[in-house]
Amino acid sequence: MSRSPGRKQENHKISRELFVLTYGALVAQLCKDYEKDEDVNACLDRMGHSIGTRLIDDFLARSAVKKCRSYSETADMIAQVAFKMYLGVTPSVSCSSATGNEFSLILDKNPLVDFVEELPAERASLCYCNLLCGVIRGALEMVHLAAEVTFLQDRLKGDAVTEIGITFLRKPEDRKHRRN
Amino acid sequence: MSRSPGRKQENHKISRELFVLTYGALVAQLCKDYEKDEDVNACLDRMGHSIGTRLIDDFLARSAVKKCRSYSETADMIAQVAFKMYLGVTPSVSCSSATGNEFSLILDKNPLVDFVEELPAERASLCYCNLLCGVIRGALEMVHLAAEVTFLQDRLKGDAVTEIGITFLRKPEDRKHRRN
Repeated sequence: MSRSPGRKQENHKISRELFVLTYGALVAQLCKDYEKDEDVNACLDRMGHSIGTRLIDDFLARSAVKKCRSYSETADMIAQVAFKMYLGVTPSVSCSSATGNEFSLILDKNPLVDFVEELPAERASLCYCNLLCGVIRGALEMVHLAAEVTFLQDRLKGDAVTEIGITFLRKPEDRKHRRN
Repeated sequence: MSRSPGRKQENHKISRELFVLTYGALVAQLCKDYEKDEDVNACLDRMGHSIGTRLIDDFLARSAVKKCRSYSETADMIAQVAFKMYLGVTPSVSCSSATGNEFSLILDKNPLVDFVEELPAERASLCYCNLLCGVIRGALEMVHLAAEVTFLQDRLKGDAVTEIGITFLRKPEDRKHRRN
């Protein structure tokens, strides 16, 4: 990573349209490379994971956030700070389990699909934005939070909203702690 | 292209870091797909061309620029309006031919290579940012300007600056006009 000393003062923003179209080119290339949607999804997730593990440094430096004290605070941070910073949108957050480790980020509008009308019929299982899941997973991993991140609903597939599910995987010491 | 009526009011900006890392993932994927640097370069150019042909509508709508009356004005428009709008940087422009149809866009800093230190030795002929050339070529084509767009210098290859050369290809009627 090459960071010049004056970097903080720079303009960190670029046009969303260029990003959206470039992301579209990436997905199209993977669809050429892999016949099965599952393989494209896995590849996007893997790429996203690698991006997330690098983006977290940038996020921590620029957001200057403190350590989150709960899964709920972490989910809010992802939605209100990280999504806002990187994609210019703020999903709403809901906790979807009594155990307090499952959350949903709900996007009324997905900024990554501006130029996409719908998925082609032969790509019905494609999770077009799966890179995002990988990014979240990779970034969380770097702050020692294991999580499963998947699309639960997708407007591209006809759902009313786009919903990303985050399930924080409890650490063994959590369970031990509770037992004591 | 699906554009909602309220789109104009939206935040069109996203974080450059996410774009840069996603672009890196795209180039890495193409390097897996194609053994020869020339094939990766051609693919990036092709993808960029396709992006440019779509981005031009967005550019014309958002910039509300008037028709350029000369190649020189067009080159300035690309550098001062388009680069600024889409990448948040403004290259300097120089005219590099007596015939007035060759221009250079010179970038002291290339916003696409923030996380790239240098090209791997086995990828010495890779034009890492070749997508940009394609975007410019594609966008110009849509306003009926044929051009060749290539990297002339690249800081990733040890050059002092990054330089994109644009050669406007004169139309047959230009020559006819001059002959009359």
